[in-house]
Amino acid sequence: MSADITTARRGRPRSEKARDAIVHASIELLLERGVAATTVDAVAVAAGVSKATIYRWWSTKETLAMDALYQEWATTSPAVDTGSVRADLRTLLCPWAELAARRPYGRIIAGLLVEVVSNPDFALEYRARFLEHRREQGRVILQRAIRRGEIPADTPIEIVLDMLYGPVYHRLLHGHAPIDDVFVCQVIDTVLDGIKPDPADRADAAS
Amino acid sequence: MSADITTARRGRPRSEKARDAIVHASIELLLERGVAATTVDAVAVAAGVSKATIYRWWSTKETLAMDALYQEWATTSPAVDTGSVRADLRTLLCPWAELAARRPYGRIIAGLLVEVVSNPDFALEYRARFLEHRREQGRVILQRAIRRGEIPADTPIEIVLDMLYGPVYHRLLHGHAPIDDVFVCQVIDTVLDGIKPDPADRADAAS
Repeated sequence: MSADITTARRGRPRSEKARDAIVHASIELLLERGVAATTVDAVAVAAGVSKATIYRWWSTKETLAMDALYQEWATTSPAVDTGSVRADLRTLLCPWAELAARRPYGRIIAGLLVEVVSNPDFALEYRARFLEHRREQGRVILQRAIRRGEIPADTPIEIVLDMLYGPVYHRLLHGHAPIDDVFVCQVIDTVLDGIKPDPADRADAAS
Repeated sequence: MSADITTARRGRPRSEKARDAIVHASIELLLERGVAATTVDAVAVAAGVSKATIYRWWSTKETLAMDALYQEWATTSPAVDTGSVRADLRTLLCPWAELAARRPYGRIIAGLLVEVVSNPDFALEYRARFLEHRREQGRVILQRAIRRGEIPADTPIEIVLDMLYGPVYHRLLHGHAPIDDVFVCQVIDTVLDGIKPDPADRADAAS
């Protein structure tokens, strides 16, 4: 097998297979037990690898949990350029919301957030390697919408991203209402309609 | 002292003072250590009460942490009827956001969420006694806005509440951006402007 097809799925190096086994075993244990009760030992046993193999790639179980969840959520089909910001955002958020609603991923996120709010080093890593990568996908869609003239050039992109992702995380973590297509579409529609206000609607704010 | 003024702050029964001491000590310890590392023993010592006194009111440290945070956040001035939904929402959310940004409350919320996502009984209690009480304040404002004719009668109130609270919780927990007045006002404005869309804006959604 020549070097130029080493990225193909067949012929993947043994280390990559071990990595996949670790990530897969982690997700199952994390969903079942949560972050606090999941140990590197248990992951090693379930994945059929040594602890040393795990520590070669991940210095803590939290970084492993973060990467495992990132990889799990990255299995949804990527957002595509449909030509419309509304449809673009749906192709980004609906498959994720559908996946997120299917299993108790909130258990992993909550465990990671405990570490985020108490460990500044992990917080930096989490935001750079997990949160920011996911936000960037929404940011690209909004920037494209600005170039297309669909939303104003001065759209506060970072706040809009919080308004798109925040409600989904809110339901995911608090569990007070379902994450379904009606919810996600309504969030997208309200945000997009809200970015282009009718000036008359603002009259009471200015008064 | 007559019975009809027992609700006044002076002359409060001793048990109420003990309760306040427990709640106050809890908040300090929880902000410093997080939920997992805070023990009922440590709270008892800091509050100068017995563990039995704490367990008289709270069966677990999580319910204590939940009530302590609820009480802490309830110290902001209550939302008032200003005559405008935009200003009503600002009086509800801005003081809370300002308070929430001041100390690491995300540490307490994250610890409680770990319990919410793993303990269905606590989840019910948390949603009924913490989340729902706070959402109700926003719900009242939105229902009043419907009666005033400021927002449509078929406004999806529960989703709108997630769009108002969700982005704030998102920043509170993930810490990727500040919770300031610019942010909160922008969230409120976008949501309110988004509830009353220009039908032309929806053209691409219908096509």
